Amino acid sequence: MTTVTTLLTNISTLVTNDPALGEGPLGLVHNAAVIVEDDRIAWVGPAKKARAHATDTVHDADGRAVVPGFVDSHSHLVFAGDRTAEFNARMSGQPYKAGGIRTTVAATRAATDAELSANVDRYLTEALRQGTTTLETKSGYGLTVHDEARALRIAAEHTDEVTYLGAHIVSPDYADDPAAYVDLVTGEMLDACAPHARWIDVFCEKGAFDGDQARAVLTAGKARGLLPRIHANQLSYGPGVQLAVELDAASADHCTHLTDADVDALANSGTVATLLPGAEFSTRAEWPDARRLLDAGATVALSTDCNPGSSFTSSMPFCIALAVRDMGMTPDEALWAATAGGAAALRRTDVGRVAPGARADLALLDAPSHVHLAYRPGVPLVSAVWRAGVRVGT
Amino acid sequence: MTTVTTLLTNISTLVTNDPALGEGPLGLVHNAAVIVEDDRIAWVGPAKKARAHATDTVHDADGRAVVPGFVDSHSHLVFAGDRTAEFNARMSGQPYKAGGIRTTVAATRAATDAELSANVDRYLTEALRQGTTTLETKSGYGLTVHDEARALRIAAEHTDEVTYLGAHIVSPDYADDPAAYVDLVTGEMLDACAPHARWIDVFCEKGAFDGDQARAVLTAGKARGLLPRIHANQLSYGPGVQLAVELDAASADHCTHLTDADVDALANSGTVATLLPGAEFSTRAEWPDARRLLDAGATVALSTDCNPGSSFTSSMPFCIALAVRDMGMTPDEALWAATAGGAAALRRTDVGRVAPGARADLALLDAPSHVHLAYRPGVPLVSAVWRAGVRVGT
Repeated sequence: MTTVTTLLTNISTLVTNDPALGEGPLGLVHNAAVIVEDDRIAWVGPAKKARAHATDTVHDADGRAVVPGFVDSHSHLVFAGDRTAEFNARMSGQPYKAGGIRTTVAATRAATDAELSANVDRYLTEALRQGTTTLETKSGYGLTVHDEARALRIAAEHTDEVTYLGAHIVSPDYADDPAAYVDLVTGEMLDACAPHARWIDVFCEKGAFDGDQARAVLTAGKARGLLPRIHANQLSYGPGVQLAVELDAASADHCTHLTDADVDALANSGTVATLLPGAEFSTRAEWPDARRLLDAGATVALSTDCNPGSSFTSSMPFCIALAVRDMGMTPDEALWAATAGGAAALRRTDVGRVAPGARADLALLDAPSHVHLAYRPGVPLVSAVWRAGVRVGT
Repeated sequence: MTTVTTLLTNISTLVTNDPALGEGPLGLVHNAAVIVEDDRIAWVGPAKKARAHATDTVHDADGRAVVPGFVDSHSHLVFAGDRTAEFNARMSGQPYKAGGIRTTVAATRAATDAELSANVDRYLTEALRQGTTTLETKSGYGLTVHDEARALRIAAEHTDEVTYLGAHIVSPDYADDPAAYVDLVTGEMLDACAPHARWIDVFCEKGAFDGDQARAVLTAGKARGLLPRIHANQLSYGPGVQLAVELDAASADHCTHLTDADVDALANSGTVATLLPGAEFSTRAEWPDARRLLDAGATVALSTDCNPGSSFTSSMPFCIALAVRDMGMTPDEALWAATAGGAAALRRTDVGRVAPGARADLALLDAPSHVHLAYRPGVPLVSAVWRAGVRVGT
């Protein structure tokens, strides 16, 4: 096979996320160039030194910034139906007690495979155009053996980062016997789902699964070779974060209500704290305190939580702007969290950075620096995207 | 001249802003069609009735929503330079006492006409792609007779809605004699600027211009045939809103700090309260209370305040999402404020609505309803735009 090479040059600011390649924690290189060979980064350095390399294609960044493709480590894209009416009612101050997540479960069960697959493709493409080149997604709107396994099978057709979330809520079919539902999730459903997934997740929260149930779910998943991650401490204080650290989960997601002990545990662990500001934005909830986590030494990731109920955004730039405005992150920290942080939350070393050997995932911004993602909120600044060396454009 | 006609059909939800044409204050028509003749709306109604009309072009909205093009009644696009470092410092918690607006004044004075014109064109095009089909912009970064007049001349090459804001701040050249600067703004500078502008504006605020100075500026402008609008009550309580009502200003902009008397005055006037949530977002300031204004009966508009210092967004959808999340507006009210509200703030009846005779300014959303502009924050949902009947697309 012939190697295909591309030179991106005249980059005003290149974020590499490799301190060995440039300034500071983001490894910034100014007046930079990148050479891509097939699906990998081959070379990174000053633009004037790149001229010596012959390449098949040259792309002039025209003084704009390039960042690593975003790594969105938490989404719920295998769903059907729409919750516009619920959102509209909530934001219009009307009382609304409808089924919430159960609405989506009913619609998802009723949908065909083709409908679910088209939906995943639609939102994944939407995210890709906004610079997201790695995207995790979950089951959790099926809640039967059949529907959870098919959700994962469909998700796996679109992404490598697939998470089994049979323990999203107790299935309405088991409302009177949650213990039996946990037995199902850790037994027959796990058997059917494990072949299609890399991760296992559980929503550890009042009204969903308590600490003992969450431990049972994650432990059973680990025994089947799945890697744990967890929805923890979103709506209230609870055991989720401590459990994540105890089980060496890759990530504890949400982390809105943390005790000092929770923060210490995260800081002294290999578990990433993944913050999901789209959820707080769309439910008018209290913001997680990223500053506190960063100051304690925890690793922080940002993700969209894209789902039709509580955070229907696929925009990592939007999450960056919120994290800077409302969660105490600097623009540099937020960019890192949305790229390298997401990679850490997925235990990946091949994405989230622009360095020789990494997958060639790049986002070209219509701005001279990555700071503009927060400085110019809401503006679609991602003007071109490469994923594994292939330009997907806008 | 031959008439060119276009049919947009299969629109799931059409916002007309004309209660005579459809449901509620937004005049919603479901399963709708629109016929455009040259630059005007010729017909609006149910899609099934549109089939009888022969048109040159048919555009299938494929079950998506159409809204009136956004009317952004407050921006500051005639500028040069960049304030990324200032933003980054503010958001990183570093002390930063640099010149702020004076930085932009110095850069703007130093720029060539071509540079300033290219900048206006760039941000106006960026806004247009996001659905903004009418955009007001201001001088205010020149602050000399020559530089203010040239800013307005350049602005007028790009938009009909041009505002003379010589009274943005007291020019640094007059720091020791503000009264002399007011004389300049109301005298020689006004003479040079009035031919290029429709509006006169003043920043009535502690540290800028007090009530008496603001009255002198607006009164002088009115005497020269300019129509008044005002930056009022942004950073503190003050006389701006009352002055706006007294002088029948088209709009009082910002309105963050209002007494009950201010709210009553607005509600019983022809002055629109224009809220600029991008400014509060980007400066971490207190939100204006749209709910209080609406409940009192005031007319509310939303606008971006796009400028490089305090609100560097050109995104009306982003402002809608913030208004719903943080200012107490319903999705319907926010959509109205960003379209018909902006038109009222510019005393225009030909834009901000989709009704026979109106200018054919339309935004097609990649979503089934206008509610999605708040439900899907940060996602670039505007997928095609028509301005005066011409498709500008994305």
